[in-house]
This record gives sequence, C-alpha cells and structure tokens, in this order.
Amino acid sequence: MNEPSKEFQLINWIRQQKSDLGQNVTTGIGDDMAVLQLGNETVLVTTDMLLDGSHFDLSQCSLEQAGYKAMACSLSDCAAMASRPVAAVVAVALPRSFTMEGAKQLHTGMQTCGNAFSCPIVGGDTTSWDKPLAITVTMLSKSMGKEPILRSGAKPGDTILVTGELGGSLEGRHLNFTPRLDEIKKITEQAAIHAMIDISDGLAQDLGHICEESGVTAILDRVAIPLSNAACKKEDPLQAALSDGEDFELLICISPTEADTLLANWKQDNKTRLSYIGQILSPDSEITDGSHALYLRDGQTGDIEPIDIVGWQHEFGK
Amino acid sequence: MNEPSKEFQLINWIRQQKSDLGQNVTTGIGDDMAVLQLGNETVLVTTDMLLDGSHFDLSQCSLEQAGYKAMACSLSDCAAMASRPVAAVVAVALPRSFTMEGAKQLHTGMQTCGNAFSCPIVGGDTTSWDKPLAITVTMLSKSMGKEPILRSGAKPGDTILVTGELGGSLEGRHLNFTPRLDEIKKITEQAAIHAMIDISDGLAQDLGHICEESGVTAILDRVAIPLSNAACKKEDPLQAALSDGEDFELLICISPTEADTLLANWKQDNKTRLSYIGQILSPDSEITDGSHALYLRDGQTGDIEPIDIVGWQHEFGK
Repeated sequence: MNEPSKEFQLINWIRQQKSDLGQNVTTGIGDDMAVLQLGNETVLVTTDMLLDGSHFDLSQCSLEQAGYKAMACSLSDCAAMASRPVAAVVAVALPRSFTMEGAKQLHTGMQTCGNAFSCPIVGGDTTSWDKPLAITVTMLSKSMGKEPILRSGAKPGDTILVTGELGGSLEGRHLNFTPRLDEIKKITEQAAIHAMIDISDGLAQDLGHICEESGVTAILDRVAIPLSNAACKKEDPLQAALSDGEDFELLICISPTEADTLLANWKQDNKTRLSYIGQILSPDSEITDGSHALYLRDGQTGDIEPIDIVGWQHEFGK
Repeated sequence: MNEPSKEFQLINWIRQQKSDLGQNVTTGIGDDMAVLQLGNETVLVTTDMLLDGSHFDLSQCSLEQAGYKAMACSLSDCAAMASRPVAAVVAVALPRSFTMEGAKQLHTGMQTCGNAFSCPIVGGDTTSWDKPLAITVTMLSKSMGKEPILRSGAKPGDTILVTGELGGSLEGRHLNFTPRLDEIKKITEQAAIHAMIDISDGLAQDLGHICEESGVTAILDRVAIPLSNAACKKEDPLQAALSDGEDFELLICISPTEADTLLANWKQDNKTRLSYIGQILSPDSEITDGSHALYLRDGQTGDIEPIDIVGWQHEFGK
C-alpha cells in the first residue's frame, strides 16, 4: 500500500480522537456525509470548501460556474448517500476587489444549481479579505426512505458499477456536471446497494476508500471502464479514468444478481450510462497476490496487475 | 438611517431573490440560524467562515485559540436562537506551510470547545492552498423545547437585557469567550423571550437588526450599559460598548414584568451579569423624533440623542 497523503493522515488522526458523539450521531467522520438521527428523521450533513485556484480558476471560468460547482459538489455527496437534499447554507470569503455584480453572479450560480434539485439556500455568512475567493457549502439531506448507503458495506462477490464516463473532468465537465440524484433515486427503487461513494478524488482512490472501510479488495476489468471523450484525448485514457479527480460519478457495490437485473432494465430508458466495471474480492482471495487493495484485469491476456492508488490529494505540511 | 454596508446590501438582495424554500424551511436567510422542520424535530443550522488576518491573527494567537473561537462563534449563534447544539461539521483551507502538528492543534482547539458544550465534530473537509488559514464551522442545533427565538419578535414596551459586559473584546476576550448557552437555558426556563440576537457586530448594529426585523425603535440608558474592563481602558468606553464587535453576549427583548422577575432572581446565583439596558419603542413614539432606529438617553439630564449605527462590517466592492 502507498503511504496515505498528509490529508488522509490528518483525517485518520482526527477519527482516532475519542469524542463523545452523543445519542444523535449514527455515522461520524469518514463517509460522504455524517448521519444524525433527529427525532423520527434521519438527517445527513456534508461540508465542502472550494478555493479559487484549486477547485476552480476565475481566470478561466465565470463566477456563475464557480457557484454552480460549489453547490453541485455537495449535491453529489447527497447522491452518494442515497439521500435527498433539503437545504444548504453557504459561507463565502469575497476578495475585497469583488463587485456587487460579481457577488450576485456567484449567488445566481449557486441558486440555479440548488433550485434544479429542490435544495434552497437557507442561510449563510459573507466575509471579505484581500485574498482569493473561498466558498463553503454545507448541505443537509434526508434519507430517500431507505437507510443511507455507507462506504463500509461492500461484500466479497459484489459487482462494482459506475454511472457516466470517467476521466478528464478538469477539461471542463467539473464546472457543469449533473449530480446523479435522479439516477440514484431510480437505482435505489430497484435494488439494495451495499456500498457507495461519489468519485471526487479519482476512481482508484475512491474505490480504495470503499475497500478500506469495508475491509475488502477490488478488481477492475480494464476494458469495462467507461472512458469519457476528454479522457480519450489524453495520452493514457485508462490512467486518466483511474486517477483524474472530480468525475462526480457514483461508484456502487451491489449483489451480482441485482446488478444484472439493474443493467438489463437500465439501458432502455436512461441517458446516463450505468456500467459494470469490476468485482469486490475478499482480501485473502486467491485471484490476487494480496499485496494491494486494487487490481486491474486484462480480459484478453488474463493478466492481473496491482493498481498503485494515485489521485487528487490536498497536500500540506511536513 | 445610514446607508447599509455592501455586506448587508448583498444579504438584502439575496433575500429578495425568490426561491422556493420548500416545506421544510420555517426561517430562511436573515436570522442567527435558519430553522427547518424535519419530521417531528425543529432543526437549526448556522455557518460561519473565520479568516486568518480578519477574525483571528495567527501572528498573535495560537492555532488552538483560532480553533476554539471558530467553534465558539457558532455555539453563540445556537444560544441566540435558544437552541441546543447537536453537531458541527468543519471545512478548513490549510496553508501549504502548515505542519501536521499545527493541523492537530487547530482541531484540538475546536474539539475542546465543542466538547464543553456537548457538540461533537461529525464531519469535515480538508483542503490546502498557499494562502492564509480559512475555517468554516457549520453547526446544527435543536430547540430547547420552546420555539426558536427570532430577531423579529420585539414589541414596543419590551425591556432590553444584555448578558455580560460589552466593548473591547478584540483586546483578547474574542479568543476565549464563553458562549452563553448555560445562561440562555436558565432564562428560557423562567421567561418567554420575544426577540434575541448575539452581539457579534457591536451592540448598536445588532440591536439595529432587531429593530429592523421587528419594525420597532429602541432607546438605551447610557449609565445602564455594562462596560467591560477592556472597554473602560479605551478613550471612549461607551462608544466601545456600542460599536466594538465580537462581544458574543446575548441581547434580549422581553416583557417588562418578566424582565423584573428575571433580574430579581438572577443576581443571587449567577456569575454572568444580566443587565437592563433600555427599552423597545414604537417607531412613532413621541419620546423620540423618529429619525433613527436607536437612541441614547442620559438619565441625569433627560437628553435623548440618536445613535448613528457603526460597527463591524465586511466591506468589498464598488
């Protein structure tokens, strides 16, 4: 295994700090959203900070696009837990050079995206400084009727599915992607998902999170991975699909029987692709050498090679 | 009235944008917290972004202090709605020069503050850039059994009370203040508060928010305003109490009868002061000339002068 990045080392340290989560908290740090039980309602919450120069670049995109993306990232987290968005609050640090018109464009982008998924912005905080724009969106959602889907439920033998196409999102799609809320609603009506995550750090890294939380390994079928047009234009399309960040597609682990039925019914009436891409294995499976969490199978040669997990990481510190 | 700052102009514009709040949202933008009805539970949410160089200064304070303050600000919002904190999520943009030890100290400060008020950190987002530290805390709370207290409920004739002492918070107290959750719990058990806000932008400005939302004016008694030691060391202590930001004390509007009973019972068993400071008036009251929202009465001379609202404002743009 690779050494975890500083970001994940920090998250692991925070998770180890014993803190009384109280009676309301069902799932704390370490999934796409935290899960709370409040009265008779299961309430989920996610927070994401987007920074000019990292998550978007205002020299290359509009303020409306930046606002749209900030909301869409959180909506994607709601989809990844099979939950329905309820409301968002937004905190922004505006550069002092910002115009009132610019602030309104930013809000318009956020509101347009929220409205498209019935997620109103119900509160916020506006501050300013002489540094770049920073946006934090925090979103609340509630379950779609079934239990929220965690990263930790994958079982050996599960089929791995993915929505849409992967790789090259930073060429443009990351600014206008559609959160997969409609798709996951259809899927959960037809099948019981075991584990799920949205692909924000890259297929390999996010599948790695499922493997770690579920105590399993995974094998991907090389030819089955759906490559985006943007990935196909890159030197190594497969590598782009494995390691480019910000696809915001859903990675789903589900029983093989349910996967087959779902895929058979899916093709007829959906614009968004849903693809088989691989299989969850037991860590002591004889198919692999057990040295890694992820493997790639070449269907033609039968060769199986380990995948070194690389993807989007926020690095800091020593 | 003074022209509103760019920050409040923007907030007013956002409030005017028609957006379907859906069936879950009871109170949207414009109070200390948004209020949602989720199942049988009233859930409140607040978000605040704190920036190095604006809300704290890492050349003058420790990372633990910055973390403590970030959580305490949100806890103060919970108090200002008479609500009980349930959980927080935290998004941080770490400077790339940050050490792992620094990141841990920051978290320790947040967790120490949260634990003191039974508010676990249940999720978050860690990102990094080559700019200063930015922290967004979003907090969920639930009602203490009664309805959340809004800014909009003040009635002519109400007595205005304030907890603690005001002014000069930036001399140090803003880094280690105690959110008034214990105090508000005691008060709500004894009395029905009509309107409330926590003083983050300064007494005059925050009382101005209550006046605007409630459609009333207010008159403060000059000698009754409790001055902090830090305010008394300043050239104009009264002005400091009126306009310095970040006191994080509670400003309470309540019927005169209940105020009298509360004040009589209060002195005996509380370390935190609770003071009468003035009275809510009808906008057409003959006591004032009706030109301003706030007035100051000199008890000795009987003179009444309008207060020009100045306080903490986040300015940007043209």
